[in-house]
Amino acid sequence: MLTIEVCFTPALYNYTLSEEPIGIAVIDVLRATTSITSAFDNLIKEIIPVSTDEEALAERSKGRYIAAEKDGIKLDYADFGNSPINFQNSQLKDQSIAYKTTNGTQTIKILKPNSKVVICSFLNISAISEWFVTNQLNALLLCSGWKNKFNLEDTMLAGAVTEKLLETNLYKIDCDSAHAALDLWKIAKPNPLLYIQKAQHRERLRKLGLDDVIEFCLEQDTSKAVPFYDGHKIIDINK
Amino acid sequence: MLTIEVCFTPALYNYTLSEEPIGIAVIDVLRATTSITSAFDNLIKEIIPVSTDEEALAERSKGRYIAAEKDGIKLDYADFGNSPINFQNSQLKDQSIAYKTTNGTQTIKILKPNSKVVICSFLNISAISEWFVTNQLNALLLCSGWKNKFNLEDTMLAGAVTEKLLETNLYKIDCDSAHAALDLWKIAKPNPLLYIQKAQHRERLRKLGLDDVIEFCLEQDTSKAVPFYDGHKIIDINK
Repeated sequence: MLTIEVCFTPALYNYTLSEEPIGIAVIDVLRATTSITSAFDNLIKEIIPVSTDEEALAERSKGRYIAAEKDGIKLDYADFGNSPINFQNSQLKDQSIAYKTTNGTQTIKILKPNSKVVICSFLNISAISEWFVTNQLNALLLCSGWKNKFNLEDTMLAGAVTEKLLETNLYKIDCDSAHAALDLWKIAKPNPLLYIQKAQHRERLRKLGLDDVIEFCLEQDTSKAVPFYDGHKIIDINK
Repeated sequence: MLTIEVCFTPALYNYTLSEEPIGIAVIDVLRATTSITSAFDNLIKEIIPVSTDEEALAERSKGRYIAAEKDGIKLDYADFGNSPINFQNSQLKDQSIAYKTTNGTQTIKILKPNSKVVICSFLNISAISEWFVTNQLNALLLCSGWKNKFNLEDTMLAGAVTEKLLETNLYKIDCDSAHAALDLWKIAKPNPLLYIQKAQHRERLRKLGLDDVIEFCLEQDTSKAVPFYDGHKIIDINK
């Protein structure tokens, strides 16, 4: 059987035990991976994840837009911040965007070269689950967390993907983290928005007046996008 | 209010955010912290946690017994392994024991000098909770996990301690990990033994024929011991 492993924060990535062939789903519900999924629904061409301000600015000189935030707040030099709403501007169709965030894009950058990496949000949860099944990959669900700490919203989604994969009868859980994520998702599932009220990052966004997108970030299966990271850029391989 | 933070594995310890005054409860339900609690119920004098085989052997020359295991199995040079039953031998009364385990004693050794550290198991859950309250300490509940991976049994206990501290109305949860641990404990609480059936380490012990102690490791409040680590040795400060 294929295996499911959940990694709660990037700091634990080096301790994961999944065996090849592995597919990695990067998760940052609030808000990077939701924004990326949303961007491809808006038919952008590609996203270049970057780690530093310098890298982001270098991408501008290549004619790219820059989306960048730190601790939830748009950086001065950026064209826009980290809200999925920013990525729904029709002017961005067919455009290329360099993207830097506090957690999500940092997570993507630490992955081993040649990893098979997709971007997962509640919006495209079924599309991502199907990608795992179609490609017969062991599933490593990698939560971005908050500055290497565990967070509830990413864990919830890891649990929801776990549930979907188990329903295929092709997968089994191979670590305690996946059991925990699934159990937490079962609590949250009847009302994810209510469950997430206690999450630290939900409170962080509320204080910044940025919590208007939370409901959007919890919508399920509105997107068929499978954003795939090839080690340099993210493109939608389901187009 | 005082705060509660849960750290799921030693690999995340450097990312914890608790502020002084902090008390750290080290948790390794299967089996190190249960064995240590049990040892003090058996009136041993002290335990010296060690990290390496060399350190353990050096302690023997000082007249100490050696308890040591790797991946669940007693090491050849040791007097006994990691089962709480080993520590209930009446010959150990007033004796000093050097102790090396795969996870629990390794966790103790990484803590910052001058940390206030106690050893927590289900056996002494109320005694440890009272120690936090009496000393007015922010509670950092540090799970040993398994080789830096999250595990269910330690998380369950962290959730149970969280519940006890919240009941005092002196504490609030200050991180998503504590919310998750509490929610998982609420699922497990009606039947912890049943809940733990799916834990990876429970299976590991079963394969080694070492799972006869699991029921014992889940007994609650049978001990008043507060094993305190002073940076070198563990003694019971509740005696």
